[in-house]
Amino acid sequence: MPDRAPRSVVAEEKQSSLHRQPHSTAYEWHCSTRKRQLSAPSRRRRQANGSQHPQANDYRPLFMEHYITAAIDCPICFAQPGIERQDSVYNGLQAISSSAKLVAVHDSARPLIMEDDARRCMHDALRVGAAVLGVAVKPTIKQVDALGNVVQTLERAGLWEVQTPQVIRPALLREGFQMVRSNHLAVTDDVSIIEAMGLPVHVTKGSYSNIKVTTPDDMMVAENLLSQQRAAAIQGPHLAASAAERSPVGLSAKL
Amino acid sequence: MPDRAPRSVVAEEKQSSLHRQPHSTAYEWHCSTRKRQLSAPSRRRRQANGSQHPQANDYRPLFMEHYITAAIDCPICFAQPGIERQDSVYNGLQAISSSAKLVAVHDSARPLIMEDDARRCMHDALRVGAAVLGVAVKPTIKQVDALGNVVQTLERAGLWEVQTPQVIRPALLREGFQMVRSNHLAVTDDVSIIEAMGLPVHVTKGSYSNIKVTTPDDMMVAENLLSQQRAAAIQGPHLAASAAERSPVGLSAKL
Repeated sequence: MPDRAPRSVVAEEKQSSLHRQPHSTAYEWHCSTRKRQLSAPSRRRRQANGSQHPQANDYRPLFMEHYITAAIDCPICFAQPGIERQDSVYNGLQAISSSAKLVAVHDSARPLIMEDDARRCMHDALRVGAAVLGVAVKPTIKQVDALGNVVQTLERAGLWEVQTPQVIRPALLREGFQMVRSNHLAVTDDVSIIEAMGLPVHVTKGSYSNIKVTTPDDMMVAENLLSQQRAAAIQGPHLAASAAERSPVGLSAKL
Repeated sequence: MPDRAPRSVVAEEKQSSLHRQPHSTAYEWHCSTRKRQLSAPSRRRRQANGSQHPQANDYRPLFMEHYITAAIDCPICFAQPGIERQDSVYNGLQAISSSAKLVAVHDSARPLIMEDDARRCMHDALRVGAAVLGVAVKPTIKQVDALGNVVQTLERAGLWEVQTPQVIRPALLREGFQMVRSNHLAVTDDVSIIEAMGLPVHVTKGSYSNIKVTTPDDMMVAENLLSQQRAAAIQGPHLAASAAERSPVGLSAKL
């Protein structure tokens, strides 16, 4: 691996990509300094600030191993984790270059993200300013009071469960963070910052397979989904192309 | 199997049950005539009315096989399926006895229902009039307009995803059905009928393991959950008691 200096990261789409879309574009990913390049004072700061996430550093070698073996043509570096999700996103946002067109925030617990879904979400974010992948809510949802009594049953037709990536123009997100910090707001997802500014957010239709893998059962389902895609890829050129188009990729790859 | 005449069904709780609760009670289950007892005109009516659910009859022998081999001390019989869920529930409601204290409507696609959860839901229904099992919503839910733009992000704290059983006093449900039919309302779940009457409905805290098994992935998760419970039962008397208390049962058993 080349010993690069810390720098912001821009992934330019490859013209030769099998999955090239007509309106695809560059995007920017969170980045910061790599572990090995931290000075002793930096390490002490990280130990002081990042003790809530001791596991974050444990996973960096795994990411780097995949990055190197998969020969992904897209620079990668790491931001410091924060106490809350929005603190981590803020840390990443500080590290990107000023020329970035989009910031895509993705849960690393969602490894089954489809390339095509991520692309469409990014196109919507370029058009609208902010976009997030989502799927229509299937179960009946009720609003319930503190005593457990139903207040109302929500109209299911307009309800969407949002996933990631959540994709936002960097200037909007910077402005949003200023407002959130000034008003001491807490938000559960990234595009909510844009909603709090009164600006539009688009929900891009995603896939139910883009699950959050957080339990052993989730892992089992994820493995099964991957097996199905591999089986489809073996069955024939048409199905293989279809399966490849729908196969999960790291957001850092081929986009 | 005894050749019983068609009749309504009441399951009295066994005093000797390991899992007896202090306030448990009888409940009533959907019932109607069994397939073998239908007259030729009834069969023709069913073919005309029930053609949307050809699979319903296919499953009856499976239910009966389980019923006989498990020696469940609770009469069982079947109602005709309807076009919509509420039509099926209405058909079941017509068949129960006038002395029933509760009607419990349960998705047969939720085989992992816990005995303790079902009991608590029934106790709440006796107290309030109507109750449904539910779990707190985990993902962020947004209300979205027809163009895919976010209208608002819902406050997650008060949102519950409802499951089954949905348990209602029969007199309330009969009254509700009259209102629903008079006003040509469509409801996605059974207790919504009671809400539409302006009467209280309680959400009883259930378990995330009470999943709806509708896909091969769901089946895999269900098998894994059952394996975990069996493993816990083998590990020791304390864990075994705990696992038994949490083990899934058919609603028709031991309640």
